[in-house]
Amino acid sequence: MASSLTAGVIGATGYTGVALLEVLVRHPDVELTFATTRQGQLAGTYVHAFHPNLLGVTGLKFTLYDPANEALASSNEKLLAEARETDVVFLCLPSGASLDAVKQLHGRRVRIIDTSPDFRLRNPEAYKQYYGRDHSLPELLQGFVYGLPELHREELKKARYAACPGCNATAMILAAYPLTKLEGLEGSRFFFDIMVGSSEAGAEPTRSSHHAERSGVTRPYSIKDHRHLAEVRQELQLPAANVTATMFSVDMIRGVECIGHVLPARLVEEKELWKVYRTVYGDEPFIRIRAKRQPGPGSLPDAKYVRGSNYCDVGFFLDEERGSIGILSALDNMLKGDVGNAVQAMNLMFGLDETTRLKDLVPSYLLG
Amino acid sequence: MASSLTAGVIGATGYTGVALLEVLVRHPDVELTFATTRQGQLAGTYVHAFHPNLLGVTGLKFTLYDPANEALASSNEKLLAEARETDVVFLCLPSGASLDAVKQLHGRRVRIIDTSPDFRLRNPEAYKQYYGRDHSLPELLQGFVYGLPELHREELKKARYAACPGCNATAMILAAYPLTKLEGLEGSRFFFDIMVGSSEAGAEPTRSSHHAERSGVTRPYSIKDHRHLAEVRQELQLPAANVTATMFSVDMIRGVECIGHVLPARLVEEKELWKVYRTVYGDEPFIRIRAKRQPGPGSLPDAKYVRGSNYCDVGFFLDEERGSIGILSALDNMLKGDVGNAVQAMNLMFGLDETTRLKDLVPSYLLG
Amino acid sequence: MASSLTAGVIGATGYTGVALLEVLVRHPDVELTFATTRQGQLAGTYVHAFHPNLLGVTGLKFTLYDPANEALASSNEKLLAEARETDVVFLCLPSGASLDAVKQLHGRRVRIIDTSPDFRLRNPEAYKQYYGRDHSLPELLQGFVYGLPELHREELKKARYAACPGCNATAMILAAYPLTKLEGLEGSRFFFDIMVGSSEAGAEPTRSSHHAERSGVTRPYSIKDHRHLAEVRQELQLPAANVTATMFSVDMIRGVECIGHVLPARLVEEKELWKVYRTVYGDEPFIRIRAKRQPGPGSLPDAKYVRGSNYCDVGFFLDEERGSIGILSALDNMLKGDVGNAVQAMNLMFGLDETTRLKDLVPSYLLG
Amino acid sequence: MASSLTAGVIGATGYTGVALLEVLVRHPDVELTFATTRQGQLAGTYVHAFHPNLLGVTGLKFTLYDPANEALASSNEKLLAEARETDVVFLCLPSGASLDAVKQLHGRRVRIIDTSPDFRLRNPEAYKQYYGRDHSLPELLQGFVYGLPELHREELKKARYAACPGCNATAMILAAYPLTKLEGLEGSRFFFDIMVGSSEAGAEPTRSSHHAERSGVTRPYSIKDHRHLAEVRQELQLPAANVTATMFSVDMIRGVECIGHVLPARLVEEKELWKVYRTVYGDEPFIRIRAKRQPGPGSLPDAKYVRGSNYCDVGFFLDEERGSIGILSALDNMLKGDVGNAVQAMNLMFGLDETTRLKDLVPSYLLG
Repeated sequence: MASSLTAGVIGATGYTGVALLEVLVRHPDVELTFATTRQGQLAGTYVHAFHPNLLGVTGLKFTLYDPANEALASSNEKLLAEARETDVVFLCLPSGASLDAVKQLHGRRVRIIDTSPDFRLRNPEAYKQYYGRDHSLPELLQGFVYGLPELHREELKKARYAACPGCNATAMILAAYPLTKLEGLEGSRFFFDIMVGSSEAGAEPTRSSHHAERSGVTRPYSIKDHRHLAEVRQELQLPAANVTATMFSVDMIRGVECIGHVLPARLVEEKELWKVYRTVYGDEPFIRIRAKRQPGPGSLPDAKYVRGSNYCDVGFFLDEERGSIGILSALDNMLKGDVGNAVQAMNLMFGLDETTRLKDLVPSYLLG
Repeated sequence: MASSLTAGVIGATGYTGVALLEVLVRHPDVELTFATTRQGQLAGTYVHAFHPNLLGVTGLKFTLYDPANEALASSNEKLLAEARETDVVFLCLPSGASLDAVKQLHGRRVRIIDTSPDFRLRNPEAYKQYYGRDHSLPELLQGFVYGLPELHREELKKARYAACPGCNATAMILAAYPLTKLEGLEGSRFFFDIMVGSSEAGAEPTRSSHHAERSGVTRPYSIKDHRHLAEVRQELQLPAANVTATMFSVDMIRGVECIGHVLPARLVEEKELWKVYRTVYGDEPFIRIRAKRQPGPGSLPDAKYVRGSNYCDVGFFLDEERGSIGILSALDNMLKGDVGNAVQAMNLMFGLDETTRLKDLVPSYLLG
Repeated sequence: MASSLTAGVIGATGYTGVALLEVLVRHPDVELTFATTRQGQLAGTYVHAFHPNLLGVTGLKFTLYDPANEALASSNEKLLAEARETDVVFLCLPSGASLDAVKQLHGRRVRIIDTSPDFRLRNPEAYKQYYGRDHSLPELLQGFVYGLPELHREELKKARYAACPGCNATAMILAAYPLTKLEGLEGSRFFFDIMVGSSEAGAEPTRSSHHAERSGVTRPYSIKDHRHLAEVRQELQLPAANVTATMFSVDMIRGVECIGHVLPARLVEEKELWKVYRTVYGDEPFIRIRAKRQPGPGSLPDAKYVRGSNYCDVGFFLDEERGSIGILSALDNMLKGDVGNAVQAMNLMFGLDETTRLKDLVPSYLLG
Repeated sequence: MASSLTAGVIGATGYTGVALLEVLVRHPDVELTFATTRQGQLAGTYVHAFHPNLLGVTGLKFTLYDPANEALASSNEKLLAEARETDVVFLCLPSGASLDAVKQLHGRRVRIIDTSPDFRLRNPEAYKQYYGRDHSLPELLQGFVYGLPELHREELKKARYAACPGCNATAMILAAYPLTKLEGLEGSRFFFDIMVGSSEAGAEPTRSSHHAERSGVTRPYSIKDHRHLAEVRQELQLPAANVTATMFSVDMIRGVECIGHVLPARLVEEKELWKVYRTVYGDEPFIRIRAKRQPGPGSLPDAKYVRGSNYCDVGFFLDEERGSIGILSALDNMLKGDVGNAVQAMNLMFGLDETTRLKDLVPSYLLG
């Protein structure tokens, strides 16, 4: 790259926002130009005054932008004018707010990477079913590529807009995707159990996120039909009838551990599994296969070994006696499950080396 | 009870041992008479010098007893002479050592409650398969009642010997047991995922239990055929072909969270589930049913709400669209999964109120 | 006791409230008669629906009572009528609300044990200085005994009202109290550093208590003049000029670890320290002295060994070369730092064995 | 730099070793050429097989080297031959082993950065006092620069050998160093309390580091004269009589929080503190000043905001009423307290931008 990309972050007070700043601020090909907030009292203040970790890291200040607040029309428009001339804007807003922002932003030079669920589902009916509202911009859905490089790399290279996956969806999809390349497994039955950290629920304090209530839990919080399953079904082309998923909050800030038990439509051999996982993921820069038969540190995916990095570790085992397959994945919900993946998508969209900045994020098992 | 029972603890340096002392020391009908160690340097020292929490709680000192160490024959015999005249002896030894101790101890007045796996399996072949050695006392197996009151209360009331269940086995059995009372579910397929705390692995320091390595994990450590499944199959009368279980270490000291996904041999209705769980567990003093459809604190079993207590919380849900059943349980692996359950068994064996001392252990969600 | 005491808990939705219920519900001499809430939507609902750990433990329902809400005058009056005929009422309300409740409740048969700071300070000026408001009931202050048995046992036996200490105050006072019995130490300089768990901040969700923000901290939150120092000065009769205290939030739910460095007004010998600590605390049922020179588990006070119990562990060391004294204490902020101590006070006020119910709370180092 | 430096890591199985690899593997000016182990069974195996986080990050294999094992003379010599031709070798060995390695390695082209305590103390008597053995290479001590850039930047630029500071020493020195620039403070009295994570104790499993025993602690482990004080006294030129330090293990893997209470030899004003801290640290790339009067996230140093980065946050407060000063610091014991600082030293020694690679390590408060 001769010169830097300009990039803006819309929604920089939340956890996706701050995690994205942590990556972009040291991206060698990116110049961060703005970071917005919907909180009026933060406008004009240093980002590091709100996110203390960023002291000394960035001198950026918050800009006010709330797409749903008509009283802010003039300041909104000022930000939008800048944003439209920016190379890439990341939307780190909650579902719904992203729709408003895209409506105001799209159609100009700027490329958009949305981290919310608003543009992930091709089918607006599915959106309505899972998010409880009509999709206000169905005509734009086809313009958004589902931002998972492992499945949509070539499309991302040409994409103007990307809708990045949910963290749990990423974990399930990347664990199961190779199985969809095996013949004769249509109609297989999947049971997923997923353990997640507290950052997944975002920055809003609630009773269930209060430290004294959230520490020490093994709390089932979504028992059979998590919203992210809509993405899993879309991307893996699985019928709804074949997938159950149960989510558990466990005591960590970051991390997703996913196990899927598969009752396959036909018997599968271990060497088939090795072959297909290696074929599908052998060249992937951020997928590591862990599938040792002997348990031990690192034998199988474990959130501890990916935390702080953009890796998704993937594994599998065969339960020969009972004819079922176990598939596993582990990722950092803020990185490969969110902003790391989004930056990977950005790198692809702008013709950069896909791993730029992300390879710097070496995981450390001593971090948490 | 007119007078106290005398009770001894064989193997009091490990985690089962110390947890048992914590319960027995305040049991109103028990007089603790000895606590043994296999570590020579601890013989004659205060138990609280090794387990600092017990300072001020008990003035008991360790007695040396190592059933496998022939060099200790005379001191062993001295302990055995006392033990044989004790009302009840709890064995808190690892698998294998328990066999040695029972061999030396059985046949006299003393009643034995074993917390190891050595006498849980009725079938010595199963023992050999899962524990890798011939059972040296197969003739005694029928004399041991499987010490789970919810399944064997009446037998325990008459038992001289009890073999208390493994913690993961207890979690799986108590979650699934009511389903075995429904007709037409024979041959149903079970997939269990289990999250456990670090105390389950015992007191021996290893790399995998080192704080910096064990904190923050979501580590799969047994992927399909955990030893405790032998107990599950025996007690639920399930064929081996029907149960897969995967165990995960998560970041907590105490607690087991168990989820089972059941692909039932016939369709089941939610009201059937309610009816059978209520019927089976309605009068159980230490089973609580949590099966709310709306997720939230306490809606379903969560280790946080049983920690420090003898409760096993049990729940279930129906995935109507996909025809599967979810079953859940949560327990404290040191209490209902180990010594709390053992004391419940003891209470039954001696005609005491089953809940004596155990009801004092009120769980607190602020403890961890 | 021929018959049970009746006891009510005013303010049972907060952490002090639930912790108190956990103790009282199994107190052999207490019959719990009511538990109040200020949240209208909880009135009439089961306490265990809000505090899920209490499922199966108590069938008590919340009663509405908000002393500051005049719109609730009639329901308040109904509760007050019952409360005035109760043997003992525990106030588990925030500062300020306790004043309102005492105003409405005092003067009748009922004895009152207040866990708030409202009646701890003998001097209403000190109250104004630290709590920012005039004390509305200064005439009642002399009627409240400072509810720390180690300092006020005899007064508590005769007390009608007790104001129980703050958790940090308890830690500092119990660590330092024996030094006040040594001659020639007037004017010594104290520097306290205190580490606390998240339950100390109560049940109100805020950004700083949000799990993702609160986990992993070592956060200084009060740097030199914590409110509890007013109690420390009063009870130890220290001048304000002699005590600095700094508080740190660390990653645990329960626990207080307190270290004080003392620059003594005269040189002190180690044997003096041993003698005075043993003399002062030798007969105390809930004080354990840990003062080994060699570091190791249990050598000195550590929150891990008191958690879940009513113990306060106290220790000390002499830095001979530099002429200073270290004093340490560790306690469970919800028990010896709050409701355990309050029940100890109640036991004394009603002529019960001081340790009733509290000795059942055996600490376990495997709990957290 | 036209070409990369070659760098080797001696002692790569321990925590310092793995943390160093995590930094160096992505250092743009470094080519990692070897990583040694003293464990024979690891020789020739992939580093990522032992440190699972490094899978996909490096293809390096362990080389056997044990300076104290004469039976390995030929393989040791082979490694030494390579090491002597390497640009820089990092020693990540325990105290004592480092002496052996330096003896074998020094005097050639290679520059040495030692992370052990063996070459930190200028005075071999102090070494003997704190480490219990005679220093075997006193003649080399003057050749080692104390590797703390904030105090010895210019010397490091010219250094061939550096001895990097201990983590607790770094925390104390950086907190207090500016005070030594104020006049009239000679003879001031310091009381330090330090909270540390479990990684500080290294990778060796012991009972005290076992997860179930180490979680939840607030454990005093060194009460008055920690070894690192020898460094503090040397670097700050403080007499031994003026510094007491007490260390506490708290429940985190990484992090050091340090508070010092200073009874100053003369009264100091807050503006003096601001001025001297700003003067001393204003240009430092890895020191951030946090000294807000109002408590809140980020107001003062907190390990949460430096974890994963090379920052040391420093703060202070004045207790005007009592005439004392509080000084604080927070750092990541594996980075600024260990290998991050070592790489900063390396950058200086080789004329690189001091922040190379280290600025990539942006702290995230969501990591732990």
